[in-house]
Amino acid sequence: MVINYELIAQDPATGARAGLLHTPHGTFKTPMFMPVGTQATVKTVTPDELEEMGAQIILGNTYHLFLRPGTELIAEAGGLHDFMNWHKGILTDSGGFQVFSLGDTRKIKEEGVYFRSILDGSKQFLSPEVATRAQEELGSDIAMAFDECIPYPAEYDYAKKSTERTTRWAERCLKAHTRKDRGMFGIIQGGMYKDLRKQSAAEITSLPFDGFAIGGLSVGEPHDLMYEILEHTTQYMPVNKARYLMGVGTPDCLVEGVARGVDMFDCVFPTRVARNGMAMVHSGRMNMKNKQYERDFTPIEEGCQCYTCRHFTRAYIRHLYKAEELLAFRLITIHNLFFLLQFMRDMRQAIIDGNFGDFRESFMAGYSARAK
Amino acid sequence: MVINYELIAQDPATGARAGLLHTPHGTFKTPMFMPVGTQATVKTVTPDELEEMGAQIILGNTYHLFLRPGTELIAEAGGLHDFMNWHKGILTDSGGFQVFSLGDTRKIKEEGVYFRSILDGSKQFLSPEVATRAQEELGSDIAMAFDECIPYPAEYDYAKKSTERTTRWAERCLKAHTRKDRGMFGIIQGGMYKDLRKQSAAEITSLPFDGFAIGGLSVGEPHDLMYEILEHTTQYMPVNKARYLMGVGTPDCLVEGVARGVDMFDCVFPTRVARNGMAMVHSGRMNMKNKQYERDFTPIEEGCQCYTCRHFTRAYIRHLYKAEELLAFRLITIHNLFFLLQFMRDMRQAIIDGNFGDFRESFMAGYSARAK
Repeated sequence: MVINYELIAQDPATGARAGLLHTPHGTFKTPMFMPVGTQATVKTVTPDELEEMGAQIILGNTYHLFLRPGTELIAEAGGLHDFMNWHKGILTDSGGFQVFSLGDTRKIKEEGVYFRSILDGSKQFLSPEVATRAQEELGSDIAMAFDECIPYPAEYDYAKKSTERTTRWAERCLKAHTRKDRGMFGIIQGGMYKDLRKQSAAEITSLPFDGFAIGGLSVGEPHDLMYEILEHTTQYMPVNKARYLMGVGTPDCLVEGVARGVDMFDCVFPTRVARNGMAMVHSGRMNMKNKQYERDFTPIEEGCQCYTCRHFTRAYIRHLYKAEELLAFRLITIHNLFFLLQFMRDMRQAIIDGNFGDFRESFMAGYSARAK
Repeated sequence: MVINYELIAQDPATGARAGLLHTPHGTFKTPMFMPVGTQATVKTVTPDELEEMGAQIILGNTYHLFLRPGTELIAEAGGLHDFMNWHKGILTDSGGFQVFSLGDTRKIKEEGVYFRSILDGSKQFLSPEVATRAQEELGSDIAMAFDECIPYPAEYDYAKKSTERTTRWAERCLKAHTRKDRGMFGIIQGGMYKDLRKQSAAEITSLPFDGFAIGGLSVGEPHDLMYEILEHTTQYMPVNKARYLMGVGTPDCLVEGVARGVDMFDCVFPTRVARNGMAMVHSGRMNMKNKQYERDFTPIEEGCQCYTCRHFTRAYIRHLYKAEELLAFRLITIHNLFFLLQFMRDMRQAIIDGNFGDFRESFMAGYSARAK
């Protein structure tokens, strides 16, 4: 197989595991956080900056690239790696999540999903075959199967029908997957229903995917329910393949996800909040616009080794943000991404050192979701 | 003196000269272009990026920094160099140009200028003494005298009165200038009137400034008139001090300015047009939004050694711009600034090699101000 997961260490008390993911663009350390590069760019930063902060795999959005500039144009450029000049790992989602988020403007049929482009209103169609082909044009190391992300809350009957269709679509994706130099992950759905999660896990993991994702979580449900469904799902997943929890990226959820045996995560959270002036720190979040930082000539977080903290002060970043200078967005983005990537590295080391329980406890004790 | 100009080579046919400018933050090569960092940041780029592209001195705007975050706060941070983490040269304007641009909302008196803040409408006052003190708080290597930039066109009587006031203000600036570890340049005004230019040059250059600027050009007059007044003015300026043409930054004007003996230039042009999607090339400008670049997988300009051209294609930059990705602004800004800085380096080498005439002729033959 073109994607291989290698287990290095495991926390005996929880399911937390440290491993290596072998891909066509290198071997990467897990657990890992994947920065999101929606439109062939992780917003505000260059590939060199991503590399400097230690990013390993980034995520590209098939839905956005399919509509603009078009996956066929990117294929002409030599694929997404060459187009954006990023030569480490790329995972692409299938476009399913975005299409289903369109609500009433899209029509789901057995053959696929009909929708209108947000850019020009033109009629568009995505299906297991189209999404697979688009991702092969992008040339991502890991393509994702085309699935339906079930909204929360959802009726049992709808969730069951949708989950079963996701399995049929997964089979069609594998059939359409012709690039043997690239891998593909299947996605387990099932909403918040344990029997459906078990059924979906059984069906999807029986298919010859290179790894498996847990989809349909972090869609508005309470954290406790997310953790419960996640734990219930991972128990049915094979230990010899990578496990990817989609759309999760706050530090508390990352720790709790790792504790439940997850290896890979992605989320727009660190980049999106950066553009709102929010800097991530171990105690939670700092609103860089706050008056209290006006004359604070210390870095965002003492001891942080990111480019921003090594070069600039809170007072300077606050000034840039208040003055609406674009550099503010970049500096906070760099800090937030570095923070999460370093957080994952620290967590991995704790697993290897046998200290994961202490790490988890001490982090959660100091963390607050409230901005200060 | 704390700022010294050293002549290295001179073109015999024109007044073009190559030199060295010694400042408290290093020795820099002239002729030079100074990127504009209005609000303690050259828009979209970091100091490291400025250094990589070979920037030597950047310009800070006293008017903007005076209003936000306040020059006193920047003094607390250790001065503008430390605040923005740029440790090569900084020249600050006096705020005069911006204040006079406010039009009817400001009142010019002999003691200074009363105006209202564009940020909060508060009453503000700038004068030779206030502007000098503000620049000493910023700690720029080169402060500029507080002057009035005469609009174009202007009546002779107004121009004469204003020019004479600028001389009186220049004397007050020198008196207020107490930081002997920092330099100050005087500014020659006189509008488009040759006798006033001669008078202003005589008066200002008789004062013990570290260098001299030609102000009040590139304010809407035709290029031919600008060149004529410039040439008329530089003949009255001392050869042993740096000459700075304020607010000029298109390549054609830079060549023609150098040909008339100017050593230093600044302009928002390269950074501002970058944010409008315009890339500067030897033949003029490229509108990166144009359809013709959609599948053009070559760099902005073949052979350009800037970071952007070494890493990214026209098609990718066009995509970023169309997708409203902030990275587009940065990549074009980097290219444009590198282009102008390299252009000045090439021009300097041509002067040293005795080829300035050929350089000027061949550049002007291929240059068009129209975007393509």
